[in-house]
Amino acid sequence: MKNGDELVFLPLGGSGEIGMNFNVYGYGPEDDRKWIIVDCGVMFGRETSTPGVDVIMPDISYLAERREDVLGIVATHAHEDHIGAIAPLWPMLRCPVYATPFTARIVEGKLEEAGLLGKVKLKEVKVGGQLKLGPFTLDFISITHSILEPNLLAIRTPLGVVAHTGDWKLDSDPLLGEKTDEAAIKRLGDEGVLAVVCDSTNALNPGASGSEKGVRDNLIELVGTLKGRVAVAAFASNVARLDSAARAAKANGRRLCLVGRSMHKMVDAARDTGYLRDLPPIASAEDAAELPPHKVLYLVTGSQGEPRAALARIAEDNHPGVFLESGDTVIFSSRIIPGNEIGIFALMNKLAGRGIEVITADGHDVHVSGHPAQDELRQMYQWLRPQIAIPVHGEMRHMTEHARLAKSLQVKQAIVPQNGQMFRLAPGKAELIDEVPSGQIHLDGRVLVSEGAGLAKARRGLGFAGIIAITLVLDGKGRSMAPAAIVTEGIPEPVAGAIRTTVEDHIARAGKRSDPDELAETVRRAARRAASEAWGKKPITRVTVVEV
Amino acid sequence: MKNGDELVFLPLGGSGEIGMNFNVYGYGPEDDRKWIIVDCGVMFGRETSTPGVDVIMPDISYLAERREDVLGIVATHAHEDHIGAIAPLWPMLRCPVYATPFTARIVEGKLEEAGLLGKVKLKEVKVGGQLKLGPFTLDFISITHSILEPNLLAIRTPLGVVAHTGDWKLDSDPLLGEKTDEAAIKRLGDEGVLAVVCDSTNALNPGASGSEKGVRDNLIELVGTLKGRVAVAAFASNVARLDSAARAAKANGRRLCLVGRSMHKMVDAARDTGYLRDLPPIASAEDAAELPPHKVLYLVTGSQGEPRAALARIAEDNHPGVFLESGDTVIFSSRIIPGNEIGIFALMNKLAGRGIEVITADGHDVHVSGHPAQDELRQMYQWLRPQIAIPVHGEMRHMTEHARLAKSLQVKQAIVPQNGQMFRLAPGKAELIDEVPSGQIHLDGRVLVSEGAGLAKARRGLGFAGIIAITLVLDGKGRSMAPAAIVTEGIPEPVAGAIRTTVEDHIARAGKRSDPDELAETVRRAARRAASEAWGKKPITRVTVVEV
Repeated sequence: MKNGDELVFLPLGGSGEIGMNFNVYGYGPEDDRKWIIVDCGVMFGRETSTPGVDVIMPDISYLAERREDVLGIVATHAHEDHIGAIAPLWPMLRCPVYATPFTARIVEGKLEEAGLLGKVKLKEVKVGGQLKLGPFTLDFISITHSILEPNLLAIRTPLGVVAHTGDWKLDSDPLLGEKTDEAAIKRLGDEGVLAVVCDSTNALNPGASGSEKGVRDNLIELVGTLKGRVAVAAFASNVARLDSAARAAKANGRRLCLVGRSMHKMVDAARDTGYLRDLPPIASAEDAAELPPHKVLYLVTGSQGEPRAALARIAEDNHPGVFLESGDTVIFSSRIIPGNEIGIFALMNKLAGRGIEVITADGHDVHVSGHPAQDELRQMYQWLRPQIAIPVHGEMRHMTEHARLAKSLQVKQAIVPQNGQMFRLAPGKAELIDEVPSGQIHLDGRVLVSEGAGLAKARRGLGFAGIIAITLVLDGKGRSMAPAAIVTEGIPEPVAGAIRTTVEDHIARAGKRSDPDELAETVRRAARRAASEAWGKKPITRVTVVEV
Repeated sequence: MKNGDELVFLPLGGSGEIGMNFNVYGYGPEDDRKWIIVDCGVMFGRETSTPGVDVIMPDISYLAERREDVLGIVATHAHEDHIGAIAPLWPMLRCPVYATPFTARIVEGKLEEAGLLGKVKLKEVKVGGQLKLGPFTLDFISITHSILEPNLLAIRTPLGVVAHTGDWKLDSDPLLGEKTDEAAIKRLGDEGVLAVVCDSTNALNPGASGSEKGVRDNLIELVGTLKGRVAVAAFASNVARLDSAARAAKANGRRLCLVGRSMHKMVDAARDTGYLRDLPPIASAEDAAELPPHKVLYLVTGSQGEPRAALARIAEDNHPGVFLESGDTVIFSSRIIPGNEIGIFALMNKLAGRGIEVITADGHDVHVSGHPAQDELRQMYQWLRPQIAIPVHGEMRHMTEHARLAKSLQVKQAIVPQNGQMFRLAPGKAELIDEVPSGQIHLDGRVLVSEGAGLAKARRGLGFAGIIAITLVLDGKGRSMAPAAIVTEGIPEPVAGAIRTTVEDHIARAGKRSDPDELAETVRRAARRAASEAWGKKPITRVTVVEV
């Protein structure tokens, strides 16, 4: 530790929303700071706020300007909201990427798809291993979540240790992979922890989140009560759940059949890295289709109602390989991600309308969350006893409740950060020292749009009230040479008619006006006024002048 | 009963969705049938499926063509999804409207707003009263729900009795208004019921929905534990809840202050019709603002996150009369209507971010549903013992579960109808006999758009990928006379640039083409191809030709 050294924390994503986890740690004096990125995730666009946007990533211009000093991206685990932005944002950062083997294998697949495989220095850290990056030493401590190889990172610096939990829960029997390394976490607490940066997703939930083992037992029992075909919808990344589905099939004389590309990818990645060695043989869709209904269990993607995923196509009865009918059952071994309700319910309605029984986690214990509820948070704070609690990965309501809980456990200081806020964690009392750009980059179609919010807003405007596009054809003196071209889209016909009449009248009356820009502006205003009077809404209105 | 007489049932709304309840009963021979409409409600548009649409109503062209034979609209109760379409659709029907006093008072207010007050024959039926409409005799049987004066209608015809439940639950202590007239329902069952047409909203929920009395007790206790200002968010139409908020205020030394126009409207309607006679005095917003924080309880609208309602403005700290701050509490005495999650959570996040505590029905028993859960449905079928069960008012998943439950209770026939399907209920076994138009009418701004789905789809398209509007200025021989006007909206700039270049190149190359339509079509295709190549999405593309 040198004079002027500071340890700083800067979330660029994930604080104030679920997903898009992107945390930055800096160490050194202000003019010579080294940076590490912990997780680099996306969140998914919404039809309401960002129509037409597939994924959203944080604005990383602050880091891009300092990329010589960014020592690496460290991934805690392989969920999209922690690694999904590595491939799209890497060209702006060009730093090495570090992860444990399963996570690295998933990242590798994504880099390959993006054509970046040879270019990115992707380095494996062994499970339970250590990584030195400049002034930072990171211990990877195994914890449990809803995917293989989740890690709590003990980030050691000369100014203290930060425990960055990543996503976690305390699952006494995660079925696959390591259990939580409680001993290591307790040792860390005994050493003394400066700050805990911790998952807030379930901070509003009392109790504990439950174990994958319980889900397995319930699935085995439930499938035993069912007669026809069974399809279990689950997140492909939950490999333990996949293994449970396989065992629920086997225990009930059924063959497991995987449906959906991401299911196969996850199984391949898990097998490549040493997991799922005793998975019973998997039936192909062709083989499964030949089996009697009571002999098959499909594990399918699409539990969130995604229109192009396997389950949506099965519900529409247009999946090439899987057919369900009255008497069959779909088990949603999943939760509803907020915002997906309508799509998921529409999917369930289609299934129900075809006589297919729908079983959800509402009525049966067929899902557990991968995030810590209040009892688990309490346990973690009891183990680590930090000076500072920094809730991340949650909406404001989760983070504030998390902070309240931490304070009630005698944590001295609780900081609820917002994306783009830089906090000095040491030396001295933690405090906000800077705010950096914290906008969003949208992946819109195939194009990365920085400051995508503006474009999304324009498209929301189009969705709300449509558009009027008017082209005036004028001669050099501003006289109309032909009827205006008036295009309306998304506007009810009687309103569009009123607009056309108004514009035409206006041009006829303004026949001798000489300033084309002025004419364009008065036409624009008249068109909007006509829409507003006939409709009560003002469409986006664009007037173009063509001079002949 | 004459030869050829039939009793038919036709839902035009509410079957397959929550809301927009619109049920039609017909009696008589096919060529001389009389019709009554039971409930005439709206549902609300969604930003995802119907951007820019406020409310959605059923296509009633089938009835409009027969309006001479439509004897009346009968409202079971005053919720928007049961009466909201009366005013907008009445001009197509021009029939009398019947309701009990409180409901009639609410309908009257809506007719007044629509300028229809003198025109519509609005007739009060007394609570527990009877109404004769041609071949139909309707008994209004008091039941409980989440509003004053909900009615189960016993619809008597020469071919049998239909029990139309409307929205209901079995609330042992509804606090205000009548209790469920169990004796009348049991008598109806003993007489013999042909069919029950029944609320499915909560058919997936085990147990019972609970009582308003329980909510009152909990609110009184909860408010007693709170220190600062308290705001309770609830549906304005739940007058019992309003009364409970008043009592929770009084019991804890606070004054009740109503915030939001619809709160005042509901209180006025309730008082006009004889309810709320002993409501403690209500404080104005001005008076409340002068009181110490622990002396005030606001009852506010906007529990669904509606951006223009009181609570949203309070959360943004731009409400003219109400100010909340750190240490104050907002109690959501309401459920989350599916589809509103993101908006409600955003509102809660704003409050949490300002240090205002947020309490919801998740952690505290501060809300009960107004719809029957499975135990209540069982009780109703036990009382009525119908030959036919017809689940309505629910999504398909609710209606199919409801039908399954009814069958398990030895109801001989369960029919899950879809909007527009006409069923003969008697004579003979009930069966589908016709399908009539079942589309939607959208209230889009101030304009009623029949077949609104097409316009909504166009606007969704604009929201997804924007628009290209191109105007070609050609002479009589199809030669370009000026640069094309190219307007793009909602398209990322690099993509828009690629489109412009392509279109300009195309026009330059096609300089001597003589057919303007052909040129327009090839330009349109080229523009879309350019967008697709640069972006992966195809905007709506409109090409107009102006001939000079």
